[in-house]
Amino acid sequence: MSKLIKPRTLAGFRDFLPATMIPREALIDTAKKVYRSYGFSPIDTPVLELYEVLTGKGSDETDKQMYQFRDNGDRHVGMRFDLTVPLARFVAQHHNDLGMPFRRYHIGEVWRGEKAQAGRYREFMQCDFDTVGTKSIASDIETGMVIFDLLRAIGFERFQIRVNNRKVLNGLLDKFGLAEDSVPVLRAIDKLEKMGRDKVCTEIKNKTSATDEQVNDILQLTELDGNNEEVLTQLMPICQGNELAEEGLDELQQLASAMKAVGIDESNLSIDVSIARGLDYYTGTIFETLLGDYPEIGSVCSGGRYDNLAQLYTRQELPGVGASLGLDRLLAAMEKLEMVPTISTPADVLVVQFSKESLNSCLVIGNCLRKAGIATEVYPAAKKLAAQFKYAERRGFKAVIVAGQDEIAKGVVQVKLLDKREQHEVPFDGQDATTLSNWLRENVAGS
Amino acid sequence: MSKLIKPRTLAGFRDFLPATMIPREALIDTAKKVYRSYGFSPIDTPVLELYEVLTGKGSDETDKQMYQFRDNGDRHVGMRFDLTVPLARFVAQHHNDLGMPFRRYHIGEVWRGEKAQAGRYREFMQCDFDTVGTKSIASDIETGMVIFDLLRAIGFERFQIRVNNRKVLNGLLDKFGLAEDSVPVLRAIDKLEKMGRDKVCTEIKNKTSATDEQVNDILQLTELDGNNEEVLTQLMPICQGNELAEEGLDELQQLASAMKAVGIDESNLSIDVSIARGLDYYTGTIFETLLGDYPEIGSVCSGGRYDNLAQLYTRQELPGVGASLGLDRLLAAMEKLEMVPTISTPADVLVVQFSKESLNSCLVIGNCLRKAGIATEVYPAAKKLAAQFKYAERRGFKAVIVAGQDEIAKGVVQVKLLDKREQHEVPFDGQDATTLSNWLRENVAGS
Repeated sequence: MSKLIKPRTLAGFRDFLPATMIPREALIDTAKKVYRSYGFSPIDTPVLELYEVLTGKGSDETDKQMYQFRDNGDRHVGMRFDLTVPLARFVAQHHNDLGMPFRRYHIGEVWRGEKAQAGRYREFMQCDFDTVGTKSIASDIETGMVIFDLLRAIGFERFQIRVNNRKVLNGLLDKFGLAEDSVPVLRAIDKLEKMGRDKVCTEIKNKTSATDEQVNDILQLTELDGNNEEVLTQLMPICQGNELAEEGLDELQQLASAMKAVGIDESNLSIDVSIARGLDYYTGTIFETLLGDYPEIGSVCSGGRYDNLAQLYTRQELPGVGASLGLDRLLAAMEKLEMVPTISTPADVLVVQFSKESLNSCLVIGNCLRKAGIATEVYPAAKKLAAQFKYAERRGFKAVIVAGQDEIAKGVVQVKLLDKREQHEVPFDGQDATTLSNWLRENVAGS
Repeated sequence: MSKLIKPRTLAGFRDFLPATMIPREALIDTAKKVYRSYGFSPIDTPVLELYEVLTGKGSDETDKQMYQFRDNGDRHVGMRFDLTVPLARFVAQHHNDLGMPFRRYHIGEVWRGEKAQAGRYREFMQCDFDTVGTKSIASDIETGMVIFDLLRAIGFERFQIRVNNRKVLNGLLDKFGLAEDSVPVLRAIDKLEKMGRDKVCTEIKNKTSATDEQVNDILQLTELDGNNEEVLTQLMPICQGNELAEEGLDELQQLASAMKAVGIDESNLSIDVSIARGLDYYTGTIFETLLGDYPEIGSVCSGGRYDNLAQLYTRQELPGVGASLGLDRLLAAMEKLEMVPTISTPADVLVVQFSKESLNSCLVIGNCLRKAGIATEVYPAAKKLAAQFKYAERRGFKAVIVAGQDEIAKGVVQVKLLDKREQHEVPFDGQDATTLSNWLRENVAGS
């Protein structure tokens, strides 16, 4: 006998079995549906690109983490590590064919050779949507609306989309004489919730030459409170006199007004001038999203506006705004909040095979129910009924249909509802499944 | 100014722009829906696996084509070149968690460093479904039913699923004394349609030591005609006396009988003893699918039964049956047959922005229509109407909604139907979109 190869995956890589893949696909389908409902179009780009194309924008960190090699044609290639660099390259390359403004979603895997550790994967899925080629605030507003619709469509009621505007922050850093220290200051502010005010003060003072007064100036921003209108009103005198800050404030006002117009409650969307989202990348509106019942897991959907997406590849200025759904994080949260059903079949109904002779009848039942829109599996072999029922329970089927020769002769089937432990006799004449499918729709959740 | 990086993709790799990605996603969604309706569960496996795990089963050809390299941890890794090897590894590894029988679908990209040429890609998507862990003919039958439902759901009426059974072929090769030459004989038979009978005779005689009589014996199989029942009747005396051939014939009979029972017409499913599907891999039922209006493009869905999926990884015997939808080929055919709409937006309706002041009203219209289930894009800026209409035509929107201050005051919107060049005034009170959405559903195809 030849030696067996041990079946195993690489560290940091995962198999998805049905029980984890079914909610994953459901989440992706929901995201696509919401993106499409706003007119975002799907695109895809290659997993492999020229190393030169992928690394243009990357930091040393991403370069180091990238999976890269020389292919059979001795080209230096890499596996994409995000969907933003490919979008920039894509828009620069197909600018004329696409036409601007251009709104796309892109759901795809990316790879990073990070240190393997719990909850960190080297292969994970990103789920991005962006509007490119317009500076209009309308697209910032719609980005927030998409995030709202997404969270609602997934099944959340209690969540908070936090919105800020980097123009306000940058304008005020300038006004307070902290412009040159903006990166360490914003990084420190981002840690406010984790570290508290005192430690943030200390960090700013350690990393910059800011005076106590300057630190107080900037930290007052993080202490505004009240509803959105009140926060905006308090911001007005603070921003006054700095053009950039006033522009940012105006954008926040337009956004808050539009959100109110479309009926999004302030419990779900709040202006929060304390979020900075560290990256230098963003230049206007920024978003993050916390779950009301599980804020500790962090933002499940973040994004913002940027000035110039593709400057490495084209002289064309391409401003845009977008966000990214944190698929893995969201699924982890949903699991913890018991929002994920534990099933490993997409079908609700299993037809057991009573005897070899009844195979065709079983296949006909399955076929008729499918035509009526009910996903139905037929057990492939005439095993002992107990084994077939065990299979049904293990997989999580909701109903099992038994149709032996007696039932077939009588023009009925037996339906067992597994969770209710009930059995019912329901008419089925071998052709028209209307009665049976209606009965199932009424009595089996999900059918 | 820094030097620009030329935005480009690697040879053999493709970007998918919205106009090609929208029908691609629609096709994938249809396939998923059909797979799920039969109880096939989704799974996913890593793109990168250990080279050793991936190459166990591969031929020299696939080994040579595989993208492989040493990762940062000096592990020899490769990118998957099909979804069958990962399935084998997956089932061997998770056998106990999965439980048998196990039916899965897997839709994912694979990579092969083939010579770049027209219509050949180095990155392409596979779309497989398999039932593993049962020898029951029921699963062969359902594989055929899935293929039938798939083609119908995609929109085809005229197609032919051709079915054969390798047991018939192998049993008869044995009976005719050609067992040792089975590979060259089956390869030659597969070319019958392309080369014609004479050249196939010549090829068999060149590559084997078969006598004229043996060649005639085997080629009679390819000349049976009539409907499925007639073909099976003609096969009976030929198979008689060879156990394997008789077993295969019995399976073909069960399959034909079941297909008739579920109402699949013989114009869509025919027994064809001349197909062999070259590979040694298959051991029982084999399928291929030709399009009635474009047979030249070749089989768009092929598969069959195999005895032992995962013998490289486990001593557990895992028989199974499955098939693979040829996504790229099918899309090429659909394009040629003009079954693909040329649109680059998933939304039917565009709301133009009449003026900056009307932004919130536009956002409310979009929001109300989306809640009523109509995908609606709002143009992000208050550009000239002509530019917004040009955008709508270019993208393929079906209807454009204009709502200026006058309309808003009057409680109406103007709807322009782009293909019909008509304009209608439809009531909308700023809150309840029932009338407007019903009107759109009636007058705009696809809404």
